[in-house]
Amino acid sequence: MTLDTERVARAVCLRIAEPGDHRLASLVETHGAAGALEQIRAGRGVAERWLVRLPSADGRADLDAAAAAGARLVVPGDLEWPTDRVEGLLAPPLGLYVRGSASLRSFLERSVAVVGSRASTAYGEHVAAEIAADLAAAGWTVVSGGAYGIDGAAHRAALAVGGRSVAILANGIDQSYPRGHVALLSRIAATGLLVTELPPGEHPSRSRFLERNRLIAALTLGTVAVEMALRSGAATTVDRAHELGRVHMAVPGPVTSPMSAGCHHWISSRNASLVTSAADVLALVAPYGEAAEADPRGEVRPTDALAPEELRLFDALPVAGSRPLAELAGAAGIAPRDLAERLDVLLRLGLATCDGTHVSRTTRGRGA
Amino acid sequence: MTLDTERVARAVCLRIAEPGDHRLASLVETHGAAGALEQIRAGRGVAERWLVRLPSADGRADLDAAAAAGARLVVPGDLEWPTDRVEGLLAPPLGLYVRGSASLRSFLERSVAVVGSRASTAYGEHVAAEIAADLAAAGWTVVSGGAYGIDGAAHRAALAVGGRSVAILANGIDQSYPRGHVALLSRIAATGLLVTELPPGEHPSRSRFLERNRLIAALTLGTVAVEMALRSGAATTVDRAHELGRVHMAVPGPVTSPMSAGCHHWISSRNASLVTSAADVLALVAPYGEAAEADPRGEVRPTDALAPEELRLFDALPVAGSRPLAELAGAAGIAPRDLAERLDVLLRLGLATCDGTHVSRTTRGRGA
Repeated sequence: MTLDTERVARAVCLRIAEPGDHRLASLVETHGAAGALEQIRAGRGVAERWLVRLPSADGRADLDAAAAAGARLVVPGDLEWPTDRVEGLLAPPLGLYVRGSASLRSFLERSVAVVGSRASTAYGEHVAAEIAADLAAAGWTVVSGGAYGIDGAAHRAALAVGGRSVAILANGIDQSYPRGHVALLSRIAATGLLVTELPPGEHPSRSRFLERNRLIAALTLGTVAVEMALRSGAATTVDRAHELGRVHMAVPGPVTSPMSAGCHHWISSRNASLVTSAADVLALVAPYGEAAEADPRGEVRPTDALAPEELRLFDALPVAGSRPLAELAGAAGIAPRDLAERLDVLLRLGLATCDGTHVSRTTRGRGA
Repeated sequence: MTLDTERVARAVCLRIAEPGDHRLASLVETHGAAGALEQIRAGRGVAERWLVRLPSADGRADLDAAAAAGARLVVPGDLEWPTDRVEGLLAPPLGLYVRGSASLRSFLERSVAVVGSRASTAYGEHVAAEIAADLAAAGWTVVSGGAYGIDGAAHRAALAVGGRSVAILANGIDQSYPRGHVALLSRIAATGLLVTELPPGEHPSRSRFLERNRLIAALTLGTVAVEMALRSGAATTVDRAHELGRVHMAVPGPVTSPMSAGCHHWISSRNASLVTSAADVLALVAPYGEAAEADPRGEVRPTDALAPEELRLFDALPVAGSRPLAELAGAAGIAPRDLAERLDVLLRLGLATCDGTHVSRTTRGRGA
């Protein structure tokens, strides 16, 4: 059997079953796609639902329609098949229609999904764009679903910095959905990839979106939800990422925004990691040693080096003017015999000056 | 030895040492306050720093000054001493000056600290007020530090709903700090409590704020940080709450706001619980069974009850108009022999109607 025969058979399988059909996936796993079709035609191991579509299924016509749309069907055995990403799936895709010249496998190698609600806010779109642009600028592929809102903001930002983006669709590779993203999807295909399990001509549906979300989760190293309501499609992507052992992350936002409520719920109750930036994301998904974690301590102050008694002594100095040496031990609550040593630390750090009888803060000390 | 003698001795101890002085706490733990002072005067177990202040320390004068400010010194053995809250502290307070007629112990029994930055945003103040008002309305005491910003918003909101509020101060009970909160602090004292370890006349300092924060953390069942920069006093309160085994919580906000950066860091890296409302707080701090957890699932949709094949069938129905029965099995990817049964579910749920040859969505179905 040639790879071509198998490819045509896989196109037929993609046509007769909905994405995520475990039973057909299992039959193809055992017999290969061509073998599975033989079994089905011989009436062995058949799910009746496949037979409704089988008579009109034409794998070669689907491959031709895909080619006419500038796409190819990638199947297991192809160099660009993302083997390690799909093997954890209960129903791995039987093939993936791909449009774009890059290798699917190499584009997904260092990839993160940035997803969220279509009904996003300006805040969410801003944050999605920041994170996607920074990930793309760091050489990572930004994967999303091509939808309005967060998805669109993420794709656009990745393209804007000349980075890699992949849109995984719930419709045929020759269809443009949503209509308003025709131009965006073309731009993604020009430098990145469009990917789908659906045969040419097919339209999205609720269950197809859900199965597409499992693919987004599976094909990437982690999924970031930027904004999502408590009930949302993005939430299913985050759940799938978690189930598949990928990193699942969410961006917080105002607690007054329903569009951040899902993110907060996933962080507090479903163990999603809180992330605020591409650096946070890379600290979680990047191979060990690759992501330099941002220093979260904030600004360093001159008084950071002081021991508690030294800090008390420093705080006993007036912000303006000076204080008699004789008052200082009592004011700071330190032993008089320790005073000279504590004061010496402040003098050496340039936080205070002493004229022999009075002590005052330096300019540096006044700013501390 | 009378309780009065011990009370005066405790006032002296509070005067000669700074809050959080482990060594004096340990001496008082062993000998009582009057006994500890005898030891110190006899030169046994003395920290030299205490001796600077000892000559001028006058416990009775401090108690009188407190009384003149309408306050009392509460010490261990008093009915209102919050024994169970202070016992985990390495240096428990040697006494607490309290202004206000309520019992300290009973006010703290069901209490939560709501804290945050002085340089708060309108967002943070709004959320602090919402959470504090809802906690207070639910009968919980809102504890904070009396400062500008988040603290003030929390106190005000608790008072506004006629609830209980306690301000724990880093200065003498007869001092008003900050100046702009003179009126607010008086209002808190009128129905709630002002509390401090500092003797009358004393002013706040950096180390006193830190030790005050340990008290806020210790005296409550949990601490919520509403807004805090990466470096902030509120962060020390949250840390202390965690160390003491109290619930430590933080409210998320826009990732673009430096005032929420500390909250996000504490959630993602220091294990603080993300909370968005008083209900979230009570779910964590309230005794088991008392807090009714909010249902986080969001709105319930008519299609929630559908099995996958039923949902696919429903999605195959056009939003407007109808579709021939003969097309439905193929369009939905279900077996023709299952069609009648699946369709029956949609009809019974009122999501679809069938005229014998065509199926369409009902009004209810069009909204789903």
